[in-house]
Amino acid sequence: MTLDRSVARLCFEGRPFEQGHVWLAGAGPGGLGCLTLEVVDALSRADAVVYDALVDIGALDAAPQAAHHYVGKRGGKPSVPQGEIDRLLVALARAGKRVLRLKGGDPNMFGRGGEEAAALARAGVPFRFLPGVTSALGALADAGIPATMRGVNKAIIFATGHSTDEENPLDWAALARTGQPIVIYMGMKNLPDIAAALIAGGLDGATPAAVIMSATLPGERILVGKLATIAPRAAEAGIGAPALVVIGAIVSVREKLAALLHEIAS
Amino acid sequence: MTLDRSVARLCFEGRPFEQGHVWLAGAGPGGLGCLTLEVVDALSRADAVVYDALVDIGALDAAPQAAHHYVGKRGGKPSVPQGEIDRLLVALARAGKRVLRLKGGDPNMFGRGGEEAAALARAGVPFRFLPGVTSALGALADAGIPATMRGVNKAIIFATGHSTDEENPLDWAALARTGQPIVIYMGMKNLPDIAAALIAGGLDGATPAAVIMSATLPGERILVGKLATIAPRAAEAGIGAPALVVIGAIVSVREKLAALLHEIAS
Repeated sequence: MTLDRSVARLCFEGRPFEQGHVWLAGAGPGGLGCLTLEVVDALSRADAVVYDALVDIGALDAAPQAAHHYVGKRGGKPSVPQGEIDRLLVALARAGKRVLRLKGGDPNMFGRGGEEAAALARAGVPFRFLPGVTSALGALADAGIPATMRGVNKAIIFATGHSTDEENPLDWAALARTGQPIVIYMGMKNLPDIAAALIAGGLDGATPAAVIMSATLPGERILVGKLATIAPRAAEAGIGAPALVVIGAIVSVREKLAALLHEIAS
Repeated sequence: MTLDRSVARLCFEGRPFEQGHVWLAGAGPGGLGCLTLEVVDALSRADAVVYDALVDIGALDAAPQAAHHYVGKRGGKPSVPQGEIDRLLVALARAGKRVLRLKGGDPNMFGRGGEEAAALARAGVPFRFLPGVTSALGALADAGIPATMRGVNKAIIFATGHSTDEENPLDWAALARTGQPIVIYMGMKNLPDIAAALIAGGLDGATPAAVIMSATLPGERILVGKLATIAPRAAEAGIGAPALVVIGAIVSVREKLAALLHEIAS
């Protein structure tokens, strides 16, 4: 193990973590590899760590001095309600603890970091955000799909596929008309409807699409296909949540890169 | 310093780094805090590190065993041409080195990771991507602006503001019509034109906007205003590259959070 030596050489030390403050931090996707030095440092100084299901339990080894509060899904039971999490964060902060709220990915990308910050602000509890590697970028890197590529795209859209049935649904047709790739978080449940809405909005059914399940974890699976048929094909293959869906020309870059490598090797 | 002890306890060890392979990795934005454990581990095992201007030089302390190749801007001189960087990566790999190509942010978010991967693939050099915290998420976290917030947005667009004058310019009007927030990388130079295009596309000139300069660095500056006037105001204030521009309702969440905290404190 050379890691501990090299990190020691880096001499990284984060900002002072004050008592009664809450830090809303991202652990990145998958295992421990995407944890940042800032978050590891915060773990080592926290009095309480409040974490959910998407966080690798191994991260808690960096916080043996802290109380560990699990607020994610347990077996078939639903997650701890958001209001209860908010109350726990406020109570711990008011008790003078340094509270690290650890979430998978980035706390602010579909991670409810802003909602928890609002609850803290309403209670007068100081907070800050520590960014993380967002799951989409972890998944794309693992799948060998560049998020952006010259000559292919100049923008990329990250959307949530959750709750298409709400009062203010996302305008998928407008997203389709940008011509830019779309990465969908939590998109598996509604994927047939989303694909139909994107095609109705003008996207070609033959647009390349990929589903990346359990990104950056040992059980990772990647399915590549076309927008029109990716949902039934994923269902047939037993590919479901947690998964990210990628739609757009960047998906085909992956196969072009692989083909180039294969051509040379053969 | 408790960091080295806690990291040692984490016992993180990345995938084997084979000779003749190139890893395209993200160092995150700003200082060393956003470096991931996977990248620190890779640094400690690389034979050569090829890095550019957006990487904190301190990261190289984790790679004392490696040759360090700087390929970023030097003083007023332009960056090393991309073709030269590609040739260096290929030559180092062919010489049997373990090559770590370290970029600021995430290698695939407007970082040319895909282009370098294509050059490596054409030369038959195996590669992989190691994700990083993309600069926009670092900047938003520091500015206290949630990338997504329930009731505010269900998607977010990341775009490059570079090269609006190319053959295939980005369709800013189509982005505007999505009604979703837009974060612009490298947007300062063309900000007056971009703001005009977004307003022409239907965005209200009063849409909240922010410019975050030198995100996550000691010289960080944040300017908050409205889409119609943010470009001249930034120019007046001497705020320029490197900076991220954020446009949309999420910007106003920042002030709402601050107001809540202030209300309680006063």
